[in-house]
Amino acid sequence: MTELRIFPITGIPEVKPGDDLAGFVCAAIADQNEALISGDIVVITHKVVSKQEGRIASIPSEAVYRKLVEDEAARIVRRRGDLVIAQTRHGFVCANAAVDRSNVAAGTAVLLPTDPDRSAHRLRTLIERETGTTLGVVITDTFGRPWRRGLVDVAIGISGLPSLVDLKGTTDTFGNELNVTEVAAVDEIAAAADLVMGKATGIPAAVVRGLNLSGNGRIADLIRPPEEDLFR
Amino acid sequence: MTELRIFPITGIPEVKPGDDLAGFVCAAIADQNEALISGDIVVITHKVVSKQEGRIASIPSEAVYRKLVEDEAARIVRRRGDLVIAQTRHGFVCANAAVDRSNVAAGTAVLLPTDPDRSAHRLRTLIERETGTTLGVVITDTFGRPWRRGLVDVAIGISGLPSLVDLKGTTDTFGNELNVTEVAAVDEIAAAADLVMGKATGIPAAVVRGLNLSGNGRIADLIRPPEEDLFR
Repeated sequence: MTELRIFPITGIPEVKPGDDLAGFVCAAIADQNEALISGDIVVITHKVVSKQEGRIASIPSEAVYRKLVEDEAARIVRRRGDLVIAQTRHGFVCANAAVDRSNVAAGTAVLLPTDPDRSAHRLRTLIERETGTTLGVVITDTFGRPWRRGLVDVAIGISGLPSLVDLKGTTDTFGNELNVTEVAAVDEIAAAADLVMGKATGIPAAVVRGLNLSGNGRIADLIRPPEEDLFR
Repeated sequence: MTELRIFPITGIPEVKPGDDLAGFVCAAIADQNEALISGDIVVITHKVVSKQEGRIASIPSEAVYRKLVEDEAARIVRRRGDLVIAQTRHGFVCANAAVDRSNVAAGTAVLLPTDPDRSAHRLRTLIERETGTTLGVVITDTFGRPWRRGLVDVAIGISGLPSLVDLKGTTDTFGNELNVTEVAAVDEIAAAADLVMGKATGIPAAVVRGLNLSGNGRIADLIRPPEEDLFR
């Protein structure tokens, strides 16, 4: 029986390019009188990862912002008025090609990490080394959905975890074979962690404890390939 | 600081039409030596709710199944081969108009509850009465997403909770106003609970404890209206 404990990592200071983010995470957890244990999943918003990596753009005007959105987009999916739904180079489909002006200094915007899996792997390795544990790491962003109002957090970079949990070939309790049941557990982890993080409170990370999940999936495995995409 | 505990409700027996589902939930929790406390959110898959309400259809053949999908659809959104993406009468856009043949006896399918908010309200009232608590209830289903592979659980009926958590007008830690930040917390709750439920294990319910969230939202508030829908 799986039971989860999810708690926020508070007290991470404002992150600047080149900062020791892994060290910040470890120190913040210690300050809460907590300690990471093997199997824990550290969930962290891409915003602090991007800041650490210097993925910050100056946005002196709305026109510059608009231009940056077009530059970050590999493909425009829909456009209506000022709203641009675009696919990023990573393959994510989201508003404004994920160029984000919230939780960042006025006149600037945060871009996604260039290679979010690599960012997750680096962070994971550093935290594991400092704590002597084996972990998973999920880097998140906040996306809208086409037919449902409201935003949810999703995974945009992972390390030490499976991309999809494949139930194919297993049977339900009635003996029916589960044919196309691949669960996007890393997205469910991102969503769960957001419940304790919160966009207005500036808490950028959380620990999900109790999931028995490890693997070496890539976030690219979560991107639906063009030939399966009915909403291009 | 919010900290969550999420645990599954195990030992709910196979549900038949007219069964005392609320009683099953309360008994199962007691058998785990747990007790609901005010503020808990009971998350339950629609499958057991639909069974309790008799929303089960006989599916003697593939043709009958196909016909049922068309009947349950208010609108076909996309069609490719056998795959039908349809909007249900409730407004949900999902595969096969949510007509589901997993976790149900062979030759049958489970339909969504007719009025899932009302189902959630009824269940909530009965459990609250039996336990002397004030709760939230989320009824879930498992949906695919257009651009991301893998399934996630989402809310399809709610009671005692806000439909969207509106951060509009609040500011982030930089003083930037959060303009369009409505969080679909009930979907994040559904996703979080699925991590301990599991489609292959037949655990149909879970408790999410620690969220400070109450309201009287309707699931209809999560449905994007046609004029905002860029993917019709």
